[in-house]
Amino acid sequence: MKEVIDKARILIEALPYIKEFRRRTVVVKIGGAAIDDLELRQRFAEDVVLLTWVGINVVVVHGGGKQVSHMLTRLGLEPSFVGGVRVTDGPTLEVAEMVLGGSLNKELVRLIGSLGGRAAGLTGKDGGLVRAKRLENEPDLGLVGEIVSVDRSVIDRLHPEFIPIIAPLAPGEQGETLNVNADPFAAGLAAALSAEKLVLLTDVSGVADERGELIPSLTREMARDLIERGALGGGMLPKVKHALRALEAGVRKVHIIDGRLEHALLLEIFTKAGVGTQVVGSDAEQE
Amino acid sequence: MKEVIDKARILIEALPYIKEFRRRTVVVKIGGAAIDDLELRQRFAEDVVLLTWVGINVVVVHGGGKQVSHMLTRLGLEPSFVGGVRVTDGPTLEVAEMVLGGSLNKELVRLIGSLGGRAAGLTGKDGGLVRAKRLENEPDLGLVGEIVSVDRSVIDRLHPEFIPIIAPLAPGEQGETLNVNADPFAAGLAAALSAEKLVLLTDVSGVADERGELIPSLTREMARDLIERGALGGGMLPKVKHALRALEAGVRKVHIIDGRLEHALLLEIFTKAGVGTQVVGSDAEQE
Amino acid sequence: MKEVIDKARILIEALPYIKEFRRRTVVVKIGGAAIDDLELRQRFAEDVVLLTWVGINVVVVHGGGKQVSHMLTRLGLEPSFVGGVRVTDGPTLEVAEMVLGGSLNKELVRLIGSLGGRAAGLTGKDGGLVRAKRLENEPDLGLVGEIVSVDRSVIDRLHPEFIPIIAPLAPGEQGETLNVNADPFAAGLAAALSAEKLVLLTDVSGVADERGELIPSLTREMARDLIERGALGGGMLPKVKHALRALEAGVRKVHIIDGRLEHALLLEIFTKAGVGTQVVGSDAEQE
Amino acid sequence: MKEVIDKARILIEALPYIKEFRRRTVVVKIGGAAIDDLELRQRFAEDVVLLTWVGINVVVVHGGGKQVSHMLTRLGLEPSFVGGVRVTDGPTLEVAEMVLGGSLNKELVRLIGSLGGRAAGLTGKDGGLVRAKRLENEPDLGLVGEIVSVDRSVIDRLHPEFIPIIAPLAPGEQGETLNVNADPFAAGLAAALSAEKLVLLTDVSGVADERGELIPSLTREMARDLIERGALGGGMLPKVKHALRALEAGVRKVHIIDGRLEHALLLEIFTKAGVGTQVVGSDAEQE
Amino acid sequence: MKEVIDKARILIEALPYIKEFRRRTVVVKIGGAAIDDLELRQRFAEDVVLLTWVGINVVVVHGGGKQVSHMLTRLGLEPSFVGGVRVTDGPTLEVAEMVLGGSLNKELVRLIGSLGGRAAGLTGKDGGLVRAKRLENEPDLGLVGEIVSVDRSVIDRLHPEFIPIIAPLAPGEQGETLNVNADPFAAGLAAALSAEKLVLLTDVSGVADERGELIPSLTREMARDLIERGALGGGMLPKVKHALRALEAGVRKVHIIDGRLEHALLLEIFTKAGVGTQVVGSDAEQE
Amino acid sequence: MKEVIDKARILIEALPYIKEFRRRTVVVKIGGAAIDDLELRQRFAEDVVLLTWVGINVVVVHGGGKQVSHMLTRLGLEPSFVGGVRVTDGPTLEVAEMVLGGSLNKELVRLIGSLGGRAAGLTGKDGGLVRAKRLENEPDLGLVGEIVSVDRSVIDRLHPEFIPIIAPLAPGEQGETLNVNADPFAAGLAAALSAEKLVLLTDVSGVADERGELIPSLTREMARDLIERGALGGGMLPKVKHALRALEAGVRKVHIIDGRLEHALLLEIFTKAGVGTQVVGSDAEQE
Repeated sequence: MKEVIDKARILIEALPYIKEFRRRTVVVKIGGAAIDDLELRQRFAEDVVLLTWVGINVVVVHGGGKQVSHMLTRLGLEPSFVGGVRVTDGPTLEVAEMVLGGSLNKELVRLIGSLGGRAAGLTGKDGGLVRAKRLENEPDLGLVGEIVSVDRSVIDRLHPEFIPIIAPLAPGEQGETLNVNADPFAAGLAAALSAEKLVLLTDVSGVADERGELIPSLTREMARDLIERGALGGGMLPKVKHALRALEAGVRKVHIIDGRLEHALLLEIFTKAGVGTQVVGSDAEQE
Repeated sequence: MKEVIDKARILIEALPYIKEFRRRTVVVKIGGAAIDDLELRQRFAEDVVLLTWVGINVVVVHGGGKQVSHMLTRLGLEPSFVGGVRVTDGPTLEVAEMVLGGSLNKELVRLIGSLGGRAAGLTGKDGGLVRAKRLENEPDLGLVGEIVSVDRSVIDRLHPEFIPIIAPLAPGEQGETLNVNADPFAAGLAAALSAEKLVLLTDVSGVADERGELIPSLTREMARDLIERGALGGGMLPKVKHALRALEAGVRKVHIIDGRLEHALLLEIFTKAGVGTQVVGSDAEQE
Repeated sequence: MKEVIDKARILIEALPYIKEFRRRTVVVKIGGAAIDDLELRQRFAEDVVLLTWVGINVVVVHGGGKQVSHMLTRLGLEPSFVGGVRVTDGPTLEVAEMVLGGSLNKELVRLIGSLGGRAAGLTGKDGGLVRAKRLENEPDLGLVGEIVSVDRSVIDRLHPEFIPIIAPLAPGEQGETLNVNADPFAAGLAAALSAEKLVLLTDVSGVADERGELIPSLTREMARDLIERGALGGGMLPKVKHALRALEAGVRKVHIIDGRLEHALLLEIFTKAGVGTQVVGSDAEQE
Repeated sequence: MKEVIDKARILIEALPYIKEFRRRTVVVKIGGAAIDDLELRQRFAEDVVLLTWVGINVVVVHGGGKQVSHMLTRLGLEPSFVGGVRVTDGPTLEVAEMVLGGSLNKELVRLIGSLGGRAAGLTGKDGGLVRAKRLENEPDLGLVGEIVSVDRSVIDRLHPEFIPIIAPLAPGEQGETLNVNADPFAAGLAAALSAEKLVLLTDVSGVADERGELIPSLTREMARDLIERGALGGGMLPKVKHALRALEAGVRKVHIIDGRLEHALLLEIFTKAGVGTQVVGSDAEQE
Repeated sequence: MKEVIDKARILIEALPYIKEFRRRTVVVKIGGAAIDDLELRQRFAEDVVLLTWVGINVVVVHGGGKQVSHMLTRLGLEPSFVGGVRVTDGPTLEVAEMVLGGSLNKELVRLIGSLGGRAAGLTGKDGGLVRAKRLENEPDLGLVGEIVSVDRSVIDRLHPEFIPIIAPLAPGEQGETLNVNADPFAAGLAAALSAEKLVLLTDVSGVADERGELIPSLTREMARDLIERGALGGGMLPKVKHALRALEAGVRKVHIIDGRLEHALLLEIFTKAGVGTQVVGSDAEQE
Repeated sequence: MKEVIDKARILIEALPYIKEFRRRTVVVKIGGAAIDDLELRQRFAEDVVLLTWVGINVVVVHGGGKQVSHMLTRLGLEPSFVGGVRVTDGPTLEVAEMVLGGSLNKELVRLIGSLGGRAAGLTGKDGGLVRAKRLENEPDLGLVGEIVSVDRSVIDRLHPEFIPIIAPLAPGEQGETLNVNADPFAAGLAAALSAEKLVLLTDVSGVADERGELIPSLTREMARDLIERGALGGGMLPKVKHALRALEAGVRKVHIIDGRLEHALLLEIFTKAGVGTQVVGSDAEQE
């Protein structure tokens, strides 16, 4: 009996966090190990359903680069990257849309459905959600886009009854489909939805400084300082930049956390410790 | 870190129960030790808030006989009972209304409020919620009533934003105020609200048979058999009768549980084991 | 037949007043004789129901000092006042909450219910309606509070279907319950609701000047002048101050009227003559 | 002061009637003196506004035969009747539509508007409200119709914010406009709206028996008996028949009252005495 | 089969126009030949129904001067004009109200109804839609008004389910009914509704310059220049002035088109060519 | 000018069809040439947008067998069929989900979006729309399903603002994904939505009898007769069976039409001739 009472206590401990975040919007970007690994994916789906049922409006944006590359290879196409961003010609885009919009998106929908949640899998093309334009880059990256504007109405129709799961594809200015990196895609949605939190699930422990020390909490000023002194590695630099842009656009907090950890999302939201790095506007918000 | 992941697992274990009961109505009657004891009362308030935040529409009906008797004594009045029911003359009713509708009701409101929940304390007189009539009894019990009808509209206005906390007083046929026993009052509300569950917090472990063995689950048939063969003691007999009446009026399950246990309400709803006796319509529902 | 036509004419005379005030909010504070006297209380309930049925959103705040003192005495406790305000220790507060929140509040609910109106009796603790803090005073008055903020949502849920009847108790900063004077409590609600009118039912004819002459209408400027030249007696001074504060916070008119007069509330709203003193922002509003 | 308190009492006396009829629909047919006489018309508009403001959903159907005949004469056309019903050829219909739908309808709208009410004047053609067919009669009456069906949606859109004022014209089966007698038109609307009351303002005191004695209350059975024994005069016979049909179609009560009396409508609704004849389903409803 | 496919293509060609204007408000003033001629009137009704069904919120304002004059003559009254505006004494107003509010208004309602549309015919007096005042003029024009304010609520209640058809009569400051010219009446409604378009159906091809050349598109600047240099004839000058006022009040475009052309309204909205003169804010909007 | 007026006439000719079907639901299954051919696909998207904008609630279900087979081949997998139904092992299902849910679904979304429509592409797994079970067949067809139940809530949330485009995949009883034939999938949705019409776009002219003669209209009885006498070929037989089942489940009409014809959908809905075979309940509905 003691054991069950302990369980009850743990549920009750979550009360203040539920209180703080219910009826708020949380945008979560899942990528890397968290989506590749069957077990972690299942845990993630559980977290999303629980957050939904305590009243949080979750929006999931997912990547899936590994699966796209795998399918390209199976089809005899050569994955190609410039500075970490996929060069996307027509055939590559077609594969990306199939794998992201068809396989992975529907797999997340299925997992959430099997737990009793109700997810609706979309892309940025559906319901006029996102308009994008081609990313200017030297060398040219092909059909790679960046968000121009967001029309939140399809998400507002689905919330709170359904959980939107979004694959980061979006229509460009000529009506062509563009591949958008999932991090800035999620940041753009979070900004348009005035989200309480943007959570980026990554394959590292969080933001680390030059000596590799994890930094649990960053103000905007500290983040800019890290960028200027070149302390951030190639993978983390753009993530921190997206985080700063999201904060400027009205998102309250950005969390860069370790998606390799089971239930990382739930722990981030429901425990004081936190499980990675939070980026906030100022010192005052660092509680 | 293992500890926090264990916590996450416990939260996740609650998922199927949340799924089953969200958007459903649960009527809880709190009385006895659970309302007398400061610590248990605090735990109860936590349970109610958590249930509310995972989407369950909770209605609380509370007794408070001990506090009424205490105040009567302080005022030099003599508490008097017939067969466990309080004989209620005018001065006694006045005290009952003050203590139940004023002190205890507002104390529960305060506790829930201090946890971030929003409770609205009412009686059966407020918003035209309940109409009652005098209970016919030999000898006469005075201003003691039984429910004639329920108009659920004030509860529908408050749900799901506010948690109704109801003191069991109701207007009689001549407009006089009547004292209603909290058990049948809660059963009447549960029936009118087509509640998923009626939970009665008592000062015993549950329903026991002649040999004092706790019965974890009773069908209606089994319950009627216990009654007929006289196996139920004086305190439990009317509770089981109210439970049967609630089931007949459309409540899905009635739980008679041990309010002396911390978080009894939460454990009943969120664990497989259960913590007392459930009364259900038939074998098929005994899962 | 002439008599019934005269009746019809009187009903029709009310048309312009109904037109002016329907769908507006009127906060009424009832205290003193109007709540002590059975007959006046009944008349008051009739007025409230009629105002509600012609489309005015009424909120009632009630005092009940006499009844609290009476119960304190019955319990062997000594009522104690400093400058007209009750010194409220723990036991006194407990009694105040019982009497105001339990007895008187539910009595008003019952009266309105017996006329076919639907009232819901609450305190400032219910539904998170009011947050208060301890009143700073020398000497200390104990558990006496003043309003810090009002969250009108529970009233908005109840209106226009239900009439909120509010006992002036509110949670303090440490979660303790505080006793708030009914006049500033009503003024605070009126301000938060942007009420059309705040009506204070008192035991005098209205505001009188140094020579005891009733002043039918006061502008803010006139009121400030009366205060400065010390023309207002001890009981009236704080009422006029609350009136001024309510006007500054957006209430259109404040009426200080004679609650000892039958149907004083109805007469104030529905006749040109008025029945006491109105306090308005400026000359232009003195029609 | 006594006088104003008497006024308050008269207002309060209306409470039980307001309680009974608020949120109910009352269809009133005005014709004869009540619409011809400037003073009576003004009183009628006041009654309608007051009823609206105490929460009754009023629908007004108006006749205007005298004005139509007057305009026909001015235009050199000869009014012609068969058994009290106007023979309506094309030019007559054109005049009837102008006078009823243009002059009288808008005059009632104006009067109500000048009292602060908001009326919307329509005909049975507007919003698809009524479909009619030509009345079969020997001799043929021309463009005279009877109601085939009612689509209440335009009235539901207008209520309770606006008071529909309806001139009894309706489209026939070939799309032609038909003139419908205002009594059966009002009865048909009352039936379609499941009205609480249908009130017919006439130029007599009510229904009288063979000896000319006013009958204050008629059951359906009594009414049928009067018809069978030929006790009803030519003008009253069809009115009682329409009343019976309305009762059969679900209207609760029909009142045939004296429109020559000031405020007849208000008096009928707000006094016990009543001012004409009520027709009800059975003895039990004759209170 | 080719023919039907051609039909499909024509339907599809309308898509971009439908896209642009759906859920927008278009106010159309019909007068002159378009309302006098049976065939044109029928075509106009068809256009209105089609626009409604593709999602455009149409409001129709109609004149009818010819019919008013005709009826005046039939009644032995002498139509009289000053500078193109009708001098309106009491008897003239009565006739104008009958003809506009009774005959023509209901004829348009009937036509739309026979096509399956649902129109509700009103005047500016109904539902408190318009408040007007007497037009100051030398010599005095009698009961002729100009719009003072518009309360759009009755139109908002009717849209999109019902099509408001408005006759340009409005209550003056003393409650008297005033006759308002249909052009400024329509312009005033368009401004109050922030209409996308105001379309004036006239008896000329559009706005012509001094040499009689049709000007397909005018900016405000060009229009002012035409006015200043006296290029506009007597009938067109006030129309262009009303157009300018509507543009200043927020209407996006004003179209002065040839109502003698079948389906002029539909063609204006659904074809690139346009069928008259558009008046726009600036060059940029002249697409 | 004559040409534009002809255009207007063609638009107006569509009025009675728009009237009949607006606010009704039409489920369209697109497959075969209509989805394979770029030009036809574009025409189809135009038709869907136009139908939506005249107020019809369209739901699109799409097949795409050719594209699935093509991708299977590119990946070195062998498409395999039994009696026209694809044998679906795990790898085949994965490809089907990618191609149907990812490529084709999003291509239809894109086309509709580029015309200004707002489509949301889903599968039967999204929003808990469909539950399926494995189709029993000898030999076993693998992961092929049939619909067990439909929960229309996600479609009700999207309509009328968004057009649902559904790929026929659905969760099975063990949570596995199943491939469902698009014809019965569309029929099942049409039944659950009580659709006015189910339109199946095929690669033949319609239903033909033994002699190859197109049958423009079939009653249920005639259809059953054709089936019994073996007159229907292998491809058409199941389609007619699905049509019959849809009619029994409450769909009003089923159309089996030639998707190879441009704008076939629009022509079917908007012309009297029709373009294939309609299947209706009885003779009476064959208009």
